[in-house]
Amino acid sequence: MPSVDLNSDLGEGFGQWTLGDDDALLDIVTSANVACGFHASDPSIMSRVCARAVDSGVAIGAQVGYRDLAGFGRRFIDMEPDALTADVIYQIGALEAFARVAGSRVCYVKPHGALYNAIVHHEEQAAAVVRAVLAYDRTLPVLGLPGSAWLRQAADAGLTVVHEAFADRAYTPEGTLVSRRLPGAVLHDPDEIARRCVAMAAGEPIQDVDGGSLTLRPDSICVHGDTSGAVEIARQVRQALTAAGAALTPFAP
Amino acid sequence: MPSVDLNSDLGEGFGQWTLGDDDALLDIVTSANVACGFHASDPSIMSRVCARAVDSGVAIGAQVGYRDLAGFGRRFIDMEPDALTADVIYQIGALEAFARVAGSRVCYVKPHGALYNAIVHHEEQAAAVVRAVLAYDRTLPVLGLPGSAWLRQAADAGLTVVHEAFADRAYTPEGTLVSRRLPGAVLHDPDEIARRCVAMAAGEPIQDVDGGSLTLRPDSICVHGDTSGAVEIARQVRQALTAAGAALTPFAP
Amino acid sequence: MPSVDLNSDLGEGFGQWTLGDDDALLDIVTSANVACGFHASDPSIMSRVCARAVDSGVAIGAQVGYRDLAGFGRRFIDMEPDALTADVIYQIGALEAFARVAGSRVCYVKPHGALYNAIVHHEEQAAAVVRAVLAYDRTLPVLGLPGSAWLRQAADAGLTVVHEAFADRAYTPEGTLVSRRLPGAVLHDPDEIARRCVAMAAGEPIQDVDGGSLTLRPDSICVHGDTSGAVEIARQVRQALTAAGAALTPFAP
Amino acid sequence: MPSVDLNSDLGEGFGQWTLGDDDALLDIVTSANVACGFHASDPSIMSRVCARAVDSGVAIGAQVGYRDLAGFGRRFIDMEPDALTADVIYQIGALEAFARVAGSRVCYVKPHGALYNAIVHHEEQAAAVVRAVLAYDRTLPVLGLPGSAWLRQAADAGLTVVHEAFADRAYTPEGTLVSRRLPGAVLHDPDEIARRCVAMAAGEPIQDVDGGSLTLRPDSICVHGDTSGAVEIARQVRQALTAAGAALTPFAP
Repeated sequence: MPSVDLNSDLGEGFGQWTLGDDDALLDIVTSANVACGFHASDPSIMSRVCARAVDSGVAIGAQVGYRDLAGFGRRFIDMEPDALTADVIYQIGALEAFARVAGSRVCYVKPHGALYNAIVHHEEQAAAVVRAVLAYDRTLPVLGLPGSAWLRQAADAGLTVVHEAFADRAYTPEGTLVSRRLPGAVLHDPDEIARRCVAMAAGEPIQDVDGGSLTLRPDSICVHGDTSGAVEIARQVRQALTAAGAALTPFAP
Repeated sequence: MPSVDLNSDLGEGFGQWTLGDDDALLDIVTSANVACGFHASDPSIMSRVCARAVDSGVAIGAQVGYRDLAGFGRRFIDMEPDALTADVIYQIGALEAFARVAGSRVCYVKPHGALYNAIVHHEEQAAAVVRAVLAYDRTLPVLGLPGSAWLRQAADAGLTVVHEAFADRAYTPEGTLVSRRLPGAVLHDPDEIARRCVAMAAGEPIQDVDGGSLTLRPDSICVHGDTSGAVEIARQVRQALTAAGAALTPFAP
Repeated sequence: MPSVDLNSDLGEGFGQWTLGDDDALLDIVTSANVACGFHASDPSIMSRVCARAVDSGVAIGAQVGYRDLAGFGRRFIDMEPDALTADVIYQIGALEAFARVAGSRVCYVKPHGALYNAIVHHEEQAAAVVRAVLAYDRTLPVLGLPGSAWLRQAADAGLTVVHEAFADRAYTPEGTLVSRRLPGAVLHDPDEIARRCVAMAAGEPIQDVDGGSLTLRPDSICVHGDTSGAVEIARQVRQALTAAGAALTPFAP
Repeated sequence: MPSVDLNSDLGEGFGQWTLGDDDALLDIVTSANVACGFHASDPSIMSRVCARAVDSGVAIGAQVGYRDLAGFGRRFIDMEPDALTADVIYQIGALEAFARVAGSRVCYVKPHGALYNAIVHHEEQAAAVVRAVLAYDRTLPVLGLPGSAWLRQAADAGLTVVHEAFADRAYTPEGTLVSRRLPGAVLHDPDEIARRCVAMAAGEPIQDVDGGSLTLRPDSICVHGDTSGAVEIARQVRQALTAAGAALTPFAP
């Protein structure tokens, strides 16, 4: 059984407002995608999450997003590529400060929300984010969706790409995500989700949305933590992987 | 004639809005206090100013401020010290990213505006900013007003403190700034300003506001660039210093 | 038994983030202090809360605050009075639009958080908020702390002032709030809180923090809703008042 | 010679930052599209511009935009229509407060920047802005580009639509704007611009980009004021119109 990484979005509160249970998730995941203040988070939250991540041996990744607190980074913004490159560098640098203060460093980059979705297809914005990582530190791995423009361009540029799969999402026979607008796109049964994650981690096939067989081999599995139900599912995924003999280890060195 | 540093606030536009003439000042000063996005500046501006500063051999300093774009960081905010520490670390880290991409690094820290003024006396906020620098990098010099709580605490904590004088401000016999509310607080005659700067750099006395003699010995002289008149004065200061045989060199290594 | 008003802070989420249970509170209170987007809230939330308030017969008040989403308006900002006046007018106007779309109007003004606390003593900022209400609509009642500079200046200017008491706060013998830093400042027993509110509404004395007798006669009682426990207390306060024969009616016409 | 309206974007500074010469333009135009704080402007600026507009007999219009100070509202944001409706209502309400304090009211609505461009074709966002005006005040005229989805939907909904032409832009034979990416899209010769404006106002043909004849009959002509050259052009346009006998009058009652 190979080792596997679990990643999740963390630090997504802002000021007085909280979102998700960062502490619970930091006991479950091996890689924390920490929001950097543009779509969510603030310096105090980043400081706290980085310190806690280092205590728990969790790798810190920069979860970079559009500058849109009011929209939580979930709205596409038609930015100039150069401005997007600068925005991404800024966010990585800000998080790096807290990671270093906590005794670690930024270990990878994962875009958030509408930016994540946009750069599956939007070549110019994908290129802008790739340029940001190249300029900042070309040894930083980048995390994303297999088949995306983002990972294709990153690989072409010599960056280390890391493929992720989603614990609770249905897949098409081609290995792409079933649109959230279609029925059955999101799985809810914790047992089924945990079983699928064990299969993915073992390199064994899971069932696609049409009932066929699909083998994904992700480097990392993304779990959610924005509701108490989601935290419970994440916990079961971790237990099932451990019970199956998978070592839970960050993908990033 | 000893060498001297000239510092100025730069990168203080935001988005579509400009303020001051960054390009002109980068040909004049030796240290650029670059705004970090909290009171002014944005990632695109920071990227451009850092690149241009490195081209010109100008040292990059983090000009950290309150999170208050609407007030340009000129309004005291009664922040929790821990939140202020985190805000300062965030700003330094964000600027560091652009400094490194440009081939340099953040070389010092100088608070801005209302924060600069507050920590002359406000011990808790001064301590919060000192803790930020200590946590981030205890080799970073800090720039400020001689006699301030900020520099006293920084020195006590083992940081390198750098004293600045203001090219265009009148001084009391005690060596403190004459309040802007009093007549004669700000000097306007370019020749007089340039002469005073040469005297300061040479370690010679200038005239205080009461006509007495005052010796300041600053490590750095602060010039302004927010109006075209200010840029012209800065240029004359530089020319006078050069003509007097002073080497213009960044104080930061 | 005279009629009484219950007021509470509402609409204090932002974007994706929620705070408190607006729907539960709109079934309890008679006056909703709706945040206006400067310390909390956004246009979508304001639209929803105003519509729901009108459905429930709850009066809409403008809960105006400092422009500080990151600090939730809980940090004093040393603003220029004219800028504060403009900020308050802006917030009232923005809320008025949603109140009118919902078929009602802004019925009163209550400052929030650090602004509320500042203008207990800060004469210039109190004057600035009074000027905003005078300029906008001098028939608008203003809600606040008896004895504050804010209500004194408002009354002097001819505004209608409305006194509030806090359901869950201890009072000194002089009728001022016991500082939150002192033990016993906040009451937690729902039965005791409800009993005190009934006494206040009836014009009967409650016990002050030293065990003496204190008569408050508030026009409105402020209840909280930011935790599920707080909502439950607010519900018990309403039930106790109703059981005691008090009509629950908005103070504003 | 019929009367004609001149409109221009005003109040587009923010905090310490200025943009354009509001005072100069308020002596030239008859309708001021005042920014409302989402893409530019702040309460202090809105207060000042409204007071000055009323003094000059200039009609106040709400220049509503995307919530994007960093991008000056020039970047398309893929917002949910309901959120856009709420954002527009908020902006109109905020400006209304200052217009009323100054003794006037919001007289019309004109979208700004990327929102203006988006709703030429984007039916859902156009519908969202139309719904905002309908909900707020269905007697408010709306200003925009002839042939846009925005004006078509507004007319269908019973709103008063006002057609504008651009003083300094080239037109295709079909009466649409020549894309800014093409050569000759923007006119620079003040005399030519002024001549074209007089022709438009008189209902006479101007030359399209291909040399053909095109008659526009705008209700309002948009002039710019963001550079000193632009202000000078606007002044010449006004002088030429006056010299030709056109009365300069706001289109809004």
